Amino acid sequence: METKEISQAVIGRLPRYLRYLGDLKDDGVERVSSQELSELMNVTASQIRQDFNNFGGFGQQGYGYNVEYLYEEISKILGLDHRHNFIIIGAGNLGRALGNYLNFERRGFIFKGMFDKNPKLVGDDVRGVKVMSIDGLEEFLQENDIDIAVLTIPKTSAVDIVNVLVDNGIRAIWNFAHVDLNVPEGILVENVHLSDSLMKLSYNINCKEQRSE
Amino acid sequence: METKEISQAVIGRLPRYLRYLGDLKDDGVERVSSQELSELMNVTASQIRQDFNNFGGFGQQGYGYNVEYLYEEISKILGLDHRHNFIIIGAGNLGRALGNYLNFERRGFIFKGMFDKNPKLVGDDVRGVKVMSIDGLEEFLQENDIDIAVLTIPKTSAVDIVNVLVDNGIRAIWNFAHVDLNVPEGILVENVHLSDSLMKLSYNINCKEQRSE
Repeated sequence: METKEISQAVIGRLPRYLRYLGDLKDDGVERVSSQELSELMNVTASQIRQDFNNFGGFGQQGYGYNVEYLYEEISKILGLDHRHNFIIIGAGNLGRALGNYLNFERRGFIFKGMFDKNPKLVGDDVRGVKVMSIDGLEEFLQENDIDIAVLTIPKTSAVDIVNVLVDNGIRAIWNFAHVDLNVPEGILVENVHLSDSLMKLSYNINCKEQRSE
Repeated sequence: METKEISQAVIGRLPRYLRYLGDLKDDGVERVSSQELSELMNVTASQIRQDFNNFGGFGQQGYGYNVEYLYEEISKILGLDHRHNFIIIGAGNLGRALGNYLNFERRGFIFKGMFDKNPKLVGDDVRGVKVMSIDGLEEFLQENDIDIAVLTIPKTSAVDIVNVLVDNGIRAIWNFAHVDLNVPEGILVENVHLSDSLMKLSYNINCKEQRSE
């Protein structure tokens, strides 16, 4: 499959398609047209067809899409048919929230370890995983096959930890620390900057207030 | 100020500018050129100038930007010079993580209340705010001036709660529930779909593996 030229914007929309298709599947719907999907998802049917054409179109437009097939194909494109082992660095509330999120496991993301530098948190149980000391991170990475590290620690610690992660084979980082990480080429980083999202909301509130004055 | 035609893509980049300018300010830097900012932030200088031109340009390019001034102006554009009171619906780990995040308060987001339907959590203290029963939400909203509701509850509950929120004057929702909310026109919603972000990472891992095979 040729996937190199697909824009991150298209990729960013695939999980949303998957979510709606999952709901349709749960409701027992077997076929859906781009028009029906368009109304459900509040995007144009032409956008949907364009997005799907990046991956060969997924079947004949006139007959609608087979929901189950489309769901499976998009899952595969997203790599959800592979298992991905992940660890969480930071055993605070955010780390625990992510560790407890069962939905990740259903998507093939397997929670394998949790680390913190605070000795008081070491030994805590988060969904069957014991919090370990950050001092044991390097050894753990060498002995286990971990794909993804989730960073839920302050930005100053994040910068140091990234080096340990990269030196020990981590290829993908899901970063919640409020900093842009410098990583070697080939290491994937997906940022979730929560403050940025809140500020975007604040901008739009402010903008609306000015318009209504 | 004319703000109507500015794209959400530009708005989405402003918090990142603010983050870098805040660091420069903390380091005592007084002026910065678009070229220097470009190298720091790993975006083109032309992108920076284009983004800033949406707001009048913020000063003369040849002399560089005044860091303090630029920081303050972008803060104002983002509405961070206003106070925004917020409540959190859902006193689980994610809700607690957001309630405990002090940085929000520094940006003018004031944590005013937290609600949960689980009676065992009612009365818990999260950074000085006592968790209240969801049954008291309506009365609380009528008696307090709340701008933003943060939803950290499952998608089935989120749909019902949104009606209560909207009927009682909430104008902005920061939504972490894994569902697209149906809200009346004029109500702002900013979604943080964590699974979607993780799947995007998974896609890129998968894609890289295929290329290296």
